[in-house]
Amino acid sequence: MSNTHSPDADNLMAELTAIRQSIDNIDAAVVHMLAERFKFTQQVGRLKAAAGMPPSDPERERVQIGRLRDIAEESRLDPEFAEKFLNFLVAEVIHHHEQIASTGSIEAQG
Amino acid sequence: MSNTHSPDADNLMAELTAIRQSIDNIDAAVVHMLAERFKFTQQVGRLKAAAGMPPSDPERERVQIGRLRDIAEESRLDPEFAEKFLNFLVAEVIHHHEQIASTGSIEAQG
Repeated sequence: MSNTHSPDADNLMAELTAIRQSIDNIDAAVVHMLAERFKFTQQVGRLKAAAGMPPSDPERERVQIGRLRDIAEESRLDPEFAEKFLNFLVAEVIHHHEQIASTGSIEAQG
Repeated sequence: MSNTHSPDADNLMAELTAIRQSIDNIDAAVVHMLAERFKFTQQVGRLKAAAGMPPSDPERERVQIGRLRDIAEESRLDPEFAEKFLNFLVAEVIHHHEQIASTGSIEAQG
């Protein structure tokens, strides 16, 4: 027992637990912000579908990637990761826009 | 000219631009929070490497996924997306932890 619960091991676990609580707080905040982000991108999707614009916009994505890479560098985050992250979000958004566009076209047929 | 710059098209572009500014603000905030998150996970990685703990922790990940799915539902975000998002972050974190662990072992040999 004293071997598996040494003061060192207890300190380590206390330190890990404290850091993980901070990580969990950040994750909760980020998930709430992403929920807002998808509300905005769904508004974009509806506007684009109503105007017959394509779901994807390569020029907008190019600008977003450059901007997020700059912000990542400023905050000492790997710019490659920031770009991967945006691509991850954009893939989800385009998936939503395609759903909106296809629902729209079914309604147009009805 | 009047056809490509109709009042409707102008309104649409103004609305799109306003929404995109909100999306850009959210993205900047999220990138800054993820920069903090990786500072914390790198601290976790160093603690784990020093204690000889494995980079990956399936039980911790299981708890995180359940918690983030609940938060996603509360904020009307797709829980599937929240889970994919956490997996995306964890993959990056494990990659960092492996780098820390291998750097540690090189130093231990030196």
